[in-house]
Amino acid sequence: MSMADGGEMHEFIAALYPICRSITGNGVRTTLEQIKRYIPLTVHEVPSGTRVFDWTVPKEWNITDAYIKNADGKKIVDFHRCNLHVVNYSVPVKKKLPLAELKSHLFTLPAHPQWVPYRTSYYSESWGFCLSHEQFLQLSDGEYEVCIDTSLEDGSLTYGEYLIRGETSDEVLISCHICHPSLCNDNLSGIAVSTMLAKMLSQGTHRYSYRFLFVPGTIGAITWLWANEPQVTAIKHGFVLAGVGDRGPLTYKRSRQGTAEIDRVFAHVLSRSENKYEIVEFSPYGYDERQFCSPGFNLPVGCVMRTPFGHYPEYHTSADNLSFIHPQALVDSLTTCLEVCSVLESNRTYVNLNPKCEPQLGKRGLYRSVGGTPPPDGVDGLVLLWVLNLSDGKHSLLDIAERAGCRFTDVNEAVKLLVKHGLLRECRESFV
Amino acid sequence: MSMADGGEMHEFIAALYPICRSITGNGVRTTLEQIKRYIPLTVHEVPSGTRVFDWTVPKEWNITDAYIKNADGKKIVDFHRCNLHVVNYSVPVKKKLPLAELKSHLFTLPAHPQWVPYRTSYYSESWGFCLSHEQFLQLSDGEYEVCIDTSLEDGSLTYGEYLIRGETSDEVLISCHICHPSLCNDNLSGIAVSTMLAKMLSQGTHRYSYRFLFVPGTIGAITWLWANEPQVTAIKHGFVLAGVGDRGPLTYKRSRQGTAEIDRVFAHVLSRSENKYEIVEFSPYGYDERQFCSPGFNLPVGCVMRTPFGHYPEYHTSADNLSFIHPQALVDSLTTCLEVCSVLESNRTYVNLNPKCEPQLGKRGLYRSVGGTPPPDGVDGLVLLWVLNLSDGKHSLLDIAERAGCRFTDVNEAVKLLVKHGLLRECRESFV
Amino acid sequence: MSMADGGEMHEFIAALYPICRSITGNGVRTTLEQIKRYIPLTVHEVPSGTRVFDWTVPKEWNITDAYIKNADGKKIVDFHRCNLHVVNYSVPVKKKLPLAELKSHLFTLPAHPQWVPYRTSYYSESWGFCLSHEQFLQLSDGEYEVCIDTSLEDGSLTYGEYLIRGETSDEVLISCHICHPSLCNDNLSGIAVSTMLAKMLSQGTHRYSYRFLFVPGTIGAITWLWANEPQVTAIKHGFVLAGVGDRGPLTYKRSRQGTAEIDRVFAHVLSRSENKYEIVEFSPYGYDERQFCSPGFNLPVGCVMRTPFGHYPEYHTSADNLSFIHPQALVDSLTTCLEVCSVLESNRTYVNLNPKCEPQLGKRGLYRSVGGTPPPDGVDGLVLLWVLNLSDGKHSLLDIAERAGCRFTDVNEAVKLLVKHGLLRECRESFV
Repeated sequence: MSMADGGEMHEFIAALYPICRSITGNGVRTTLEQIKRYIPLTVHEVPSGTRVFDWTVPKEWNITDAYIKNADGKKIVDFHRCNLHVVNYSVPVKKKLPLAELKSHLFTLPAHPQWVPYRTSYYSESWGFCLSHEQFLQLSDGEYEVCIDTSLEDGSLTYGEYLIRGETSDEVLISCHICHPSLCNDNLSGIAVSTMLAKMLSQGTHRYSYRFLFVPGTIGAITWLWANEPQVTAIKHGFVLAGVGDRGPLTYKRSRQGTAEIDRVFAHVLSRSENKYEIVEFSPYGYDERQFCSPGFNLPVGCVMRTPFGHYPEYHTSADNLSFIHPQALVDSLTTCLEVCSVLESNRTYVNLNPKCEPQLGKRGLYRSVGGTPPPDGVDGLVLLWVLNLSDGKHSLLDIAERAGCRFTDVNEAVKLLVKHGLLRECRESFV
Repeated sequence: MSMADGGEMHEFIAALYPICRSITGNGVRTTLEQIKRYIPLTVHEVPSGTRVFDWTVPKEWNITDAYIKNADGKKIVDFHRCNLHVVNYSVPVKKKLPLAELKSHLFTLPAHPQWVPYRTSYYSESWGFCLSHEQFLQLSDGEYEVCIDTSLEDGSLTYGEYLIRGETSDEVLISCHICHPSLCNDNLSGIAVSTMLAKMLSQGTHRYSYRFLFVPGTIGAITWLWANEPQVTAIKHGFVLAGVGDRGPLTYKRSRQGTAEIDRVFAHVLSRSENKYEIVEFSPYGYDERQFCSPGFNLPVGCVMRTPFGHYPEYHTSADNLSFIHPQALVDSLTTCLEVCSVLESNRTYVNLNPKCEPQLGKRGLYRSVGGTPPPDGVDGLVLLWVLNLSDGKHSLLDIAERAGCRFTDVNEAVKLLVKHGLLRECRESFV
Repeated sequence: MSMADGGEMHEFIAALYPICRSITGNGVRTTLEQIKRYIPLTVHEVPSGTRVFDWTVPKEWNITDAYIKNADGKKIVDFHRCNLHVVNYSVPVKKKLPLAELKSHLFTLPAHPQWVPYRTSYYSESWGFCLSHEQFLQLSDGEYEVCIDTSLEDGSLTYGEYLIRGETSDEVLISCHICHPSLCNDNLSGIAVSTMLAKMLSQGTHRYSYRFLFVPGTIGAITWLWANEPQVTAIKHGFVLAGVGDRGPLTYKRSRQGTAEIDRVFAHVLSRSENKYEIVEFSPYGYDERQFCSPGFNLPVGCVMRTPFGHYPEYHTSADNLSFIHPQALVDSLTTCLEVCSVLESNRTYVNLNPKCEPQLGKRGLYRSVGGTPPPDGVDGLVLLWVLNLSDGKHSLLDIAERAGCRFTDVNEAVKLLVKHGLLRECRESFV
């Protein structure tokens, strides 16, 4: 295994790839079991029929088999070769029907004739098959046998949760959707990066508590918010991880608040990276940030993607496979999230204990730096001066980094040095 | 007649064109009588000598005849051929005088030798004639007879007013100046568009009351403000109409407040039109917005023009005639004002009745839209989501349209659909 | 002498040039005596050892002689030829030593082999010589005799202060550093401009009191702040003068507050000048604005320079001599500061006494201007209208000039005219 080159994440994705997930059912459970190999997830089951805000937890869907046989009895479409072949959440069906009638249940992508599309029929009882357009064109007239061996029964909706307790009960929420079948970027990539991020954050102590959610898209997030409504005020920052394995540049979508601390931290970290990136404004269409940012919650939760959904042709097709995602992209996504968490952890406010005029840095060995060689500790002297000048209890370290035009990490190093020399102390009173 | 192609407005302007108007007198009365053919105007008369703030209502000016005869007794300048020939508000005069002396009373436009300039002598007792520079150059030495048969006597200042009562007493003020003689763009165009706007708004019910003023420039607006000072707090929005018939792009001049709702609505409507337009900042020089926006009133009143005054050579000359204005330009000005009123009418604030997570649009048949076909009602699904997301009682529909980057009308359609489905209700509490 | 062409300032600088100044000692005293020829300076002496915030007033340093003799007994480096040759604040030394050992005490500028660098050893006991790199390369092996005849003894830190009392006790602080030896731009230029500014402001009465400081860099400003801490709240505006004689464009560095009135006034005056200029953001590295803008004081004090320190190769070298500075640059710096003071003096808030509608300017002879000839007093009519429109007690004259896009001086002339006509009065209530 190798965390550094993304090999471990890619292998994890490969293991999850064959599982046929949906918004409910055993596919989700099996996936959560796999995640438990890395982190001690708590698995919740919420019964079908439970009213969650304006929604109702749906029946549990499970699938054993699905195929189309031609008049010769040959399986021309087989769920076991690719689970995208069956429209996800299809009701059971077993019957013979002529091609003309079958066609209204077939979905293809004429623009990409070799790819199989991904379709769902959540919240409406229907059935169907997805196949490549090439294969569709070869279908000859005649009678076909269709079989979808699924069950739609009262059961439960399943999701996983992992809380890493920190020094305070203030939380950072990190959420990803786990309801898609064999699609790698959307969203096995998010599952893998989230799992590894949780694993790494679990090693060490933190100021914040980190809450990881592995939930079915939309209904899972809604169910979690419904079940945890009184506690959501603990969430101070958060982001959704989805589509973080393709070769495109990292994209951060701002929260509804737009200038929340999480938004500013992502903007800072991305702007200081050497890679291309995009920052896009909030919109109410997208992943589960839609629920976290609904007006009744308005949580400071953004969304981390690489190429945004719908902006790459492989999106929601069989071409979103293991070769579409790239280990180095996974690593870059993970590293960025870790850096963001690191900035959140350190983004405190300090007060200069010698606020009247500059303290005499020279007698403390801290002055050689400015315009010349750095001081012994390797901290840039100008950053020392910025920290002293702006540490009036009203500027966070991120404020200082932004105004000084330097890296947060450099500001943080300067802070450590100044605290060590008794020139600075954390301002624990409420942030202004 | 045709409202749609501007023919009716152009005919109305043609009917008003020959009348010799001034800031007082029968020209104004005749003009208001003509407007009454379309709308039930109330005509007010304010006696000469009335003190109105820092000003005094001037004497009433009426004119019967004015000419210059040469030594041969031939009328070489005749008021009855063009009422611009006499300096407006000239005192009576009848005498003979040599060319050298006459010249100090003659005004021409050397840069446009065929045009007659428009000049006034309000608030200073003098007299004069305006003529083309070509004619001026042909004047030979000798004695001339000048006759200006005017009267300047105590009488009154006349203005027209029309209030269309709405559901509330909150008012939209629409004002135009009616004191210019035979000049079409400045401001028969404003009179015609204002009249037709009033006629159209009088058909139907509205949230706002609409108050139309037809007043002599400056002194008329001041007199109205003086007479109605306690009631001006009812004015929530307003605009002045002047020079709205030429072929230039529509120009909106912001109110002194700069970001009043009327300023934002004009900016929104113009930015969504297919035509070129200009938005200019407030300045204290211009039309009667100067009075409405004086610091003691500071009303949210902008000004609608096409090419701004002074930016076209025909301004205040005989070339501002019936061929200078264009029916289609009048229609475009009228249509824009109607659309602005329509946005003002609908720009309310709503609350999402399911603010916690998204409501389940699918079960209401409202979800097919996003990224695909529109829902049955033809409303864009993304706009539905924006309205739901921002309807927290703090965002007006205009706020939502601006943030979503879409048309106000699309937002308004989405609102109607959501209200119909019980997902939204108007927020009647005070707007935040 | 000539103030107008900068000749007097240049001569003053020439007189100060030979004096060997340091942060303490007789060089500073002699310099202050010279300044007293122009303005009645008060000289303060603060004893060595006094604790001033985090600092301690150092010992007094005086120098009689310093040289290096070669083996032949020839003085090859002589303090009396150029006082930069000795590292400023060197401890006394008299001994013989070989070249190899001497070299660790020698400082040169290889990139500019003919120039002598300026070095100091404040706050650390050491000694050294500065010489040209050309001379350094010619040193042959052998024994050298070094002599630095200095004294470092308890004495005092000396600084000068001059307060011009105005109508109010609100102060404008103008400060320059006086601790550098034979360096013309840094900062004999600042001393000369400051002296002449004080001399000119002392002639006449002012609204503000003007406090001029002539202090050793850093420790002098800190000492002054320590000694005057309770009174600094009187400082409403201020600027530091340093490096204002070179041929580069004027540069204004904003105060820590960034949009203080002094920052806006400098921006306005510079933007209306015909010369190139730069406005740079605050940073905590620079001249004594560092102390005035430390978070415990946060005074609205900017810094006036021409080419910023460190951005010209002559900085802190013997090439910063009398030919490096230019009389016209000194005049331009002085003139700009005078204009800034003039704007500060006049930047008051007025109320329109006829706030409802425009006053009738015509009956007061103030109206011919707009779009035509100016009124008798030479004031632009549009500026009159702007002043009337915005004088609501909430807009200062600078606010008006900025919004109207015109010169402050034009606004001020309009104000005088309107006050004379009883249309405006100063708003003495607290500025909103």
